[in-house]
Amino acid sequence: MIVAMQDVATEDQIQAVIDHLVQLGFEVHRSTGARQTVLGAVGARPEVDIAIFEVLPGVQEVHRISSPYKLAGKSFRPEGTIVRLANGVEIGGKEVIVMAGPCSIESHDQIFLIAEQVADAGARVLRGGAFKPRSSPYSFQGMGEEGLKLMREAADKHGLLVISEVMEISQIPLILPYVDILQVGARNMQNFNLLRELGKARKPVLLKRGIAATIEELLLSAEYIMSGGNYEVILCERGIRTFETYTRNTMDISAIPIVHKLSHLPMTADPSHGTGRRDKVPPMARASVAAGADALLIEVHSNPDKALSDGAQSLFPAQFTTLMNELRVIAPAVGRTIR
Amino acid sequence: MIVAMQDVATEDQIQAVIDHLVQLGFEVHRSTGARQTVLGAVGARPEVDIAIFEVLPGVQEVHRISSPYKLAGKSFRPEGTIVRLANGVEIGGKEVIVMAGPCSIESHDQIFLIAEQVADAGARVLRGGAFKPRSSPYSFQGMGEEGLKLMREAADKHGLLVISEVMEISQIPLILPYVDILQVGARNMQNFNLLRELGKARKPVLLKRGIAATIEELLLSAEYIMSGGNYEVILCERGIRTFETYTRNTMDISAIPIVHKLSHLPMTADPSHGTGRRDKVPPMARASVAAGADALLIEVHSNPDKALSDGAQSLFPAQFTTLMNELRVIAPAVGRTIR
Amino acid sequence: MIVAMQDVATEDQIQAVIDHLVQLGFEVHRSTGARQTVLGAVGARPEVDIAIFEVLPGVQEVHRISSPYKLAGKSFRPEGTIVRLANGVEIGGKEVIVMAGPCSIESHDQIFLIAEQVADAGARVLRGGAFKPRSSPYSFQGMGEEGLKLMREAADKHGLLVISEVMEISQIPLILPYVDILQVGARNMQNFNLLRELGKARKPVLLKRGIAATIEELLLSAEYIMSGGNYEVILCERGIRTFETYTRNTMDISAIPIVHKLSHLPMTADPSHGTGRRDKVPPMARASVAAGADALLIEVHSNPDKALSDGAQSLFPAQFTTLMNELRVIAPAVGRTIR
Amino acid sequence: MIVAMQDVATEDQIQAVIDHLVQLGFEVHRSTGARQTVLGAVGARPEVDIAIFEVLPGVQEVHRISSPYKLAGKSFRPEGTIVRLANGVEIGGKEVIVMAGPCSIESHDQIFLIAEQVADAGARVLRGGAFKPRSSPYSFQGMGEEGLKLMREAADKHGLLVISEVMEISQIPLILPYVDILQVGARNMQNFNLLRELGKARKPVLLKRGIAATIEELLLSAEYIMSGGNYEVILCERGIRTFETYTRNTMDISAIPIVHKLSHLPMTADPSHGTGRRDKVPPMARASVAAGADALLIEVHSNPDKALSDGAQSLFPAQFTTLMNELRVIAPAVGRTIR
Repeated sequence: MIVAMQDVATEDQIQAVIDHLVQLGFEVHRSTGARQTVLGAVGARPEVDIAIFEVLPGVQEVHRISSPYKLAGKSFRPEGTIVRLANGVEIGGKEVIVMAGPCSIESHDQIFLIAEQVADAGARVLRGGAFKPRSSPYSFQGMGEEGLKLMREAADKHGLLVISEVMEISQIPLILPYVDILQVGARNMQNFNLLRELGKARKPVLLKRGIAATIEELLLSAEYIMSGGNYEVILCERGIRTFETYTRNTMDISAIPIVHKLSHLPMTADPSHGTGRRDKVPPMARASVAAGADALLIEVHSNPDKALSDGAQSLFPAQFTTLMNELRVIAPAVGRTIR
Repeated sequence: MIVAMQDVATEDQIQAVIDHLVQLGFEVHRSTGARQTVLGAVGARPEVDIAIFEVLPGVQEVHRISSPYKLAGKSFRPEGTIVRLANGVEIGGKEVIVMAGPCSIESHDQIFLIAEQVADAGARVLRGGAFKPRSSPYSFQGMGEEGLKLMREAADKHGLLVISEVMEISQIPLILPYVDILQVGARNMQNFNLLRELGKARKPVLLKRGIAATIEELLLSAEYIMSGGNYEVILCERGIRTFETYTRNTMDISAIPIVHKLSHLPMTADPSHGTGRRDKVPPMARASVAAGADALLIEVHSNPDKALSDGAQSLFPAQFTTLMNELRVIAPAVGRTIR
Repeated sequence: MIVAMQDVATEDQIQAVIDHLVQLGFEVHRSTGARQTVLGAVGARPEVDIAIFEVLPGVQEVHRISSPYKLAGKSFRPEGTIVRLANGVEIGGKEVIVMAGPCSIESHDQIFLIAEQVADAGARVLRGGAFKPRSSPYSFQGMGEEGLKLMREAADKHGLLVISEVMEISQIPLILPYVDILQVGARNMQNFNLLRELGKARKPVLLKRGIAATIEELLLSAEYIMSGGNYEVILCERGIRTFETYTRNTMDISAIPIVHKLSHLPMTADPSHGTGRRDKVPPMARASVAAGADALLIEVHSNPDKALSDGAQSLFPAQFTTLMNELRVIAPAVGRTIR
Repeated sequence: MIVAMQDVATEDQIQAVIDHLVQLGFEVHRSTGARQTVLGAVGARPEVDIAIFEVLPGVQEVHRISSPYKLAGKSFRPEGTIVRLANGVEIGGKEVIVMAGPCSIESHDQIFLIAEQVADAGARVLRGGAFKPRSSPYSFQGMGEEGLKLMREAADKHGLLVISEVMEISQIPLILPYVDILQVGARNMQNFNLLRELGKARKPVLLKRGIAATIEELLLSAEYIMSGGNYEVILCERGIRTFETYTRNTMDISAIPIVHKLSHLPMTADPSHGTGRRDKVPPMARASVAAGADALLIEVHSNPDKALSDGAQSLFPAQFTTLMNELRVIAPAVGRTIR
């Protein structure tokens, strides 16, 4: 931690800050320049709230130096993490993995048809939601366990893995047997009780960035899961909230190279939620791969106009096939392949 | 819903949109002007996702007209809602109610001392958290039920009511016996499963605005609770995330008059979380009352420098007393009183 | 400047950063902790772009310590600046000064009528625009010098001072003879050529915060003017752009106490532009005074529904009178008066 | 315009709104549903401020339908605009045009060396600034006309065109003889006086999006230029301000496909300013081309560590060459080429 004192700070104020730091276990280095004094504090607990020092008399500003995450940080595993799954699927490896499927599992026929379509186009993982608490209390709420069962069967039949979202602790044991990857949605990125439980799970977790979360906060949430012993965390950008209202969210493509610099964890992108509009999904999917994404989540529906949720952002199967062909052209530019 | 067609839209495209609307149960009014055609669709279910129409061929833009909330809307109860509690405390009435106390309950002595201090200064409700899942996995996590019990006793001794935060469904039965108001934090504003359960509770709920939530989304979350039968919902502004980084969040004071225009529910403010810095709490508390807030939540700690959480935003008791005196000057400007 | 090295940084990388700093004239203090090395660099030119260091090998992060503004900083004049004008008007003194008038000067009768109305209600300064380049190329563009002349006469007749906006360098000599305060609009907050010229003017400048400008950037723009020799700078909050779309901008009331902490310059508020909606102006005006604003700018129009610009945010004269009465109740809570 | 009345609106209120609309020249269509009345108003002037109606009694909300820009809108020239320049350079055609060079022209040797390097790598246009008013009043301010002259000679020698920024009206005649494209920076996007003058220029204008500007506002600024008779407008995304602070701005890649949907004008990207950090430039440049950008602006410096401005975001020449090779792989995925 660095504490910069105001140029008008008195010697007593400086000493009081030093005392406070020492009391908390910090080793303090004092630099006095022509205009002001700066205190460097090293060695103590990362959980100290630096705001406590910001309000002490004579303090100008405080900066935290040590990043608040360790397990999620680049230096923990500089070579990068590869999450290895069944069927030879590796997230964070040379192949860019595409996960595709409907927003919600709606019926046997729907999920089997879409599974076939996305597998044919080159997807490796089937996505689909079984629980859908919606922002309106009057909407379709999901098929539950029955949906998970159908999705697993459909995926197995077409050589796909399965990813699905877990929304609360009580759903973990229910979902676990059916999926290869547990997904945590943007709204739960800081549901720390849920994250703690997922730290005990023995399956990879795909953690989506909250719409108002900084990249540092995303990494801190990953740290939460990892501190419980589950190191198989996959990060995902899916749009942040900005002043621009043309799209529901603004997809922050730059988060992809930034996470790759700060962390060893795989970084993926969800252009369907990131844009909310079908016609914007292919350009943003291409951009994500060009920026280095390790995997993509894409909503595909055999009949988007009849989808029970998120139809407007689901691709038609033919659009998805075209997109996959475009991605195969782009991947080599970043030293990657797509099946 | 209003669907504005592009000026180059063909008659077939217009007809396809009309058919789609009629199929969903809308009654459609068509207006054809010199440059374009506009379709007015009324009478159908509010839960229809308007984005479905945005991606139809020939459509320029779509606007929802009916607000998506009904129970929370002004016209449901134009005279305004007053939440009536014990000790004659009314939120939404003539008196501006001040709720004060520590971020976390830390010990018997701490909560009894602070209860006395805030009661003496004029607070009517004691606030304090019993469960503190923190953004860092390495921080103090709260006293749990033992803390709630202590807070209740401290409050009763000093004629105060109690408000405390509930973070997940399983905590509801635990917290319910000890509190007068259940608080939902900003991170849970869209935890729809939790909101649904709170709709069945027989105690008032104070719902905080998420840091990336629009005012409309806040009202929709209130609607979620109300649709379960619990009409005693109190709303709260506590800062939104913006590009300005000097304060942790930017407190949106304008949300106070806006909620009062759109809704009949009481609207309150939390300047402690809204600013995150002790020295900014009094000006923002004063501003909130001047803008018409029905109640305030303010963190006060007998020894903020030793607080186990949020010390930097907690007022010293003497600062709180001074603030209360200032608020008593301001309240009459908006036709209110403060005890 | 503080340069925190990555924990994996090599000794060569650390030495290269030190060399670079020394070359630029910094004195470097090195602190090596258990996990990483931190370099404190003091004494050099504030204009060095810290991003240059952020991209050096082995660097984790860089923080600027010395604030980049000096003349605008609190320590330059800790007692605060009072801008003294004719008629005993002081901005930054005990009296909260209200500046009111129409968005645009439209005619002789309009400006004389409004001047009378706002003077009667207690305003001390008449505001009004003579040049109105609008965001649509098809709108009313202002009366020009003729308008300024009318405004001056109307103000003099009713004992008011005059403030009006200057939009480009060529307008300065034109506007200067007619006004007591030159106003710089939000869009010009970083028009550095204009600011430089205003630094040579011998009249006070009211500088509005840009809708995407941080408070630090606002102070840096003030520094620009002051570095030219004009120390009579008055700052003004008028709304920032956020994700909330209910109001055109989100008025950042917290900027008022923050500027008062960081700077000695008077800080004012413009709730008319800050909200864009007439019914939100009084609550936000009251909130501004409660938060400590030194002055207010308020749009008032004798017939807002016929105003040629910004009618929706202009108060009716009777509303303005009511507001002034409310402000007179609030001002004593912050040790101020209003005429 | 669509005016939705509140469900509690009286017949008198509805009639007053209709009268106001008719008075302004609108043709009004009234739709009365079970819950509320909706008024469709077509045919009148696009410049009417809809906020005027938002504050009328009984009005719930108002939506503008006709887009406020015409010349910049897609339907004005559905086939798209190609800006044709010397040397066969076409912006908006099949080739993705890369414009590269230093932030500032610093010396004869610097600009000639960089021109050679970027031309060799495949750039078609040389970029460089001659006027550099900086946010700090203490920084390098540019070489002025001497710099322009050097840049023109360097460009001509290596078969490049020239783009440079114009910052105020008085610079237009100075810059015009030396450049092929006039650039308007983000801070001037709403400098309407400057835009109006550029509407009279006979050279293409590259208009950068302001950091707080919506896409609609960008198009409206283009409209401003076009309404003066200059239809050769090129748009450019260079980052918007969001809550994320890791990068200076958040580059909004989705603006590329959105502008291509709404407008016929070429849409380009500036990943150097969009990220502010050298290591983020290549991924965001690749993402921009993958998303469909018609051209790129990239800062390249022969010795970035010694650059007088923006060194941290300038690529080394070798990095630029590598990037160009990557872009050549990506371009065919979107049906484009790069020289």
